[in-house]
Amino acid sequence: MGRNIAIVGATGAVGQEFMSIIDERKFAFSSLKMLASARSAGKSITFQGKEYPVEELTKDSFKRVDIALFSAGAGRSKEFAAAAVAAGAVVVDNSSAFRMTPDVPLVIPEINPQDIKKHKGIIANPNCSTIIAIVPVWPLHKVNPVKRMVVSTYQAASGAGQAAMLELEEQSREVLAGKPVTCKALKYQLAFNVFSHNSAMLPNGYNEEEMKMVHETHKIFHCPEIAITATCIRVGVLRAHCESINLEFRDPITPDEVRELLSTAPGVTVMDDRVNNRFPMPIDASGKDNVLVGRIRQDESIPDNRGINLWVAGDQLRKGAALNAIQIAELL
Amino acid sequence: MGRNIAIVGATGAVGQEFMSIIDERKFAFSSLKMLASARSAGKSITFQGKEYPVEELTKDSFKRVDIALFSAGAGRSKEFAAAAVAAGAVVVDNSSAFRMTPDVPLVIPEINPQDIKKHKGIIANPNCSTIIAIVPVWPLHKVNPVKRMVVSTYQAASGAGQAAMLELEEQSREVLAGKPVTCKALKYQLAFNVFSHNSAMLPNGYNEEEMKMVHETHKIFHCPEIAITATCIRVGVLRAHCESINLEFRDPITPDEVRELLSTAPGVTVMDDRVNNRFPMPIDASGKDNVLVGRIRQDESIPDNRGINLWVAGDQLRKGAALNAIQIAELL
Repeated sequence: MGRNIAIVGATGAVGQEFMSIIDERKFAFSSLKMLASARSAGKSITFQGKEYPVEELTKDSFKRVDIALFSAGAGRSKEFAAAAVAAGAVVVDNSSAFRMTPDVPLVIPEINPQDIKKHKGIIANPNCSTIIAIVPVWPLHKVNPVKRMVVSTYQAASGAGQAAMLELEEQSREVLAGKPVTCKALKYQLAFNVFSHNSAMLPNGYNEEEMKMVHETHKIFHCPEIAITATCIRVGVLRAHCESINLEFRDPITPDEVRELLSTAPGVTVMDDRVNNRFPMPIDASGKDNVLVGRIRQDESIPDNRGINLWVAGDQLRKGAALNAIQIAELL
Repeated sequence: MGRNIAIVGATGAVGQEFMSIIDERKFAFSSLKMLASARSAGKSITFQGKEYPVEELTKDSFKRVDIALFSAGAGRSKEFAAAAVAAGAVVVDNSSAFRMTPDVPLVIPEINPQDIKKHKGIIANPNCSTIIAIVPVWPLHKVNPVKRMVVSTYQAASGAGQAAMLELEEQSREVLAGKPVTCKALKYQLAFNVFSHNSAMLPNGYNEEEMKMVHETHKIFHCPEIAITATCIRVGVLRAHCESINLEFRDPITPDEVRELLSTAPGVTVMDDRVNNRFPMPIDASGKDNVLVGRIRQDESIPDNRGINLWVAGDQLRKGAALNAIQIAELL
């Protein structure tokens, strides 16, 4: 017997991905409720051959719901998660609303599944770029603590939602036709361009996306002493993020050791073919569950063989969002 | 009275850019010889209203030539540079052929113009990603030595030549039309994708592009002790490279000090508008002479305020290649 599930943000890019993953993983549910803003209410979504009405999200939406998968932005989560919890649901929240709230577990099932037990109604799903970075770092950190991490991201349009993905395609058509470029979902041109991540700028000069990487990693690893710095950049890719990750470990570690540890790590696929220059690309990661890892090299700029460079690619909508949330729901 | 100039590789992307820059900077020349492979010989190039025949590059091409600007790949440079020198020309070579040869100066005019004097007929132009990275690092290094540099690049198609630029556009049209993607100039799909740089893989797992950054910086700065590690990535951009640069200095340094040092540095434009999230983008840098620098932040993962993050963008064909070579020619 399955649970009663509600999807909040059912018409969004992550909402759509929730359904693909529920279907693929044969996630058992008794009922499925599609919730979205008033603007989308009245539409319907066909899923597994059945038509579901899209209902307007209100505080009364959660009667008899066991698990509410939220992916409708931090504002909606802040407004409606408490109502879902009060109605008896467990909220798995994909937004940033509660991630750093002390009694809300922030969970990547491959890393800290035990934290789920401590929930008081809400479990937070980490930010996409954090998940994709640290799923492959954790198996290394467990055997040889990471002292410092320097990350530069190559993030897809999907992180800014379905409108941004469509806009990237439309902008590309415009550039190829020599027309002026339309920027609505995104502030700047993304087609044939890259730009600093569009999240809010903080007083220290880092954007929110960059500081999420720092704070969320500390919380998920239960290790606030790792020194982390990040530079988050959007590139003209549709739905998979890449990241260049430079790691300093406490003790010496070789690329072969890294490759061996990662070859059996959950959620990770090593793709590190130096002979054919074949390393993870967004088009490889798109639609895949695992984070792909390659370019595993000794960082010769750190003494005593304590440095490693990695290059990773992961599907922002799947492991970066919907898949991780469904994995949490499976553990509930 | 100007000099007699030969352009080797006149029909290539950098060759074309040599001409734009000669025109813009009113570089005085008495004669201009357009040299290319036999395949292009017989074509003609119109420059400043005059038609120039494209002649086949041979060892006899350099009679009465004063300065030969080579940009036709390392193979051609190795084969023909000695003939140019024997004929009395000074070779400014944009290829990797002689960059690390001990008695060949490797010059960025903003950094080590004095090295030009030591030339024995050949002066090497550094690799594009090195130039774009270190033009803004040098003014900082001069006052506070850089101990370590971690660089991740976002490199444009132009670095792989004109065919790669056209292929990126063609691939984009194919993806948008739902057609299979053609890979000829590039090994992998670049449209709506990114991939690890297509240069040859070395035994240590780094590609040539990455090790150029290490060795060339050491030579240009006359400072072999800087620890450098790089990850070089191609992105779907036409002609300007971006780079995420993490710097560890010997002594404390603040973002304000960096901003002030860079605001008067030659070849650098600070574009660091946190309020409007307005930072260097490839479309800003394209066609510009200066390297644009922004995202100037204290790296909080390095103790004692000795860490700085930078984000730079520079035109690969201009400062990354042709402009730097013409600046060297101007100094001759």
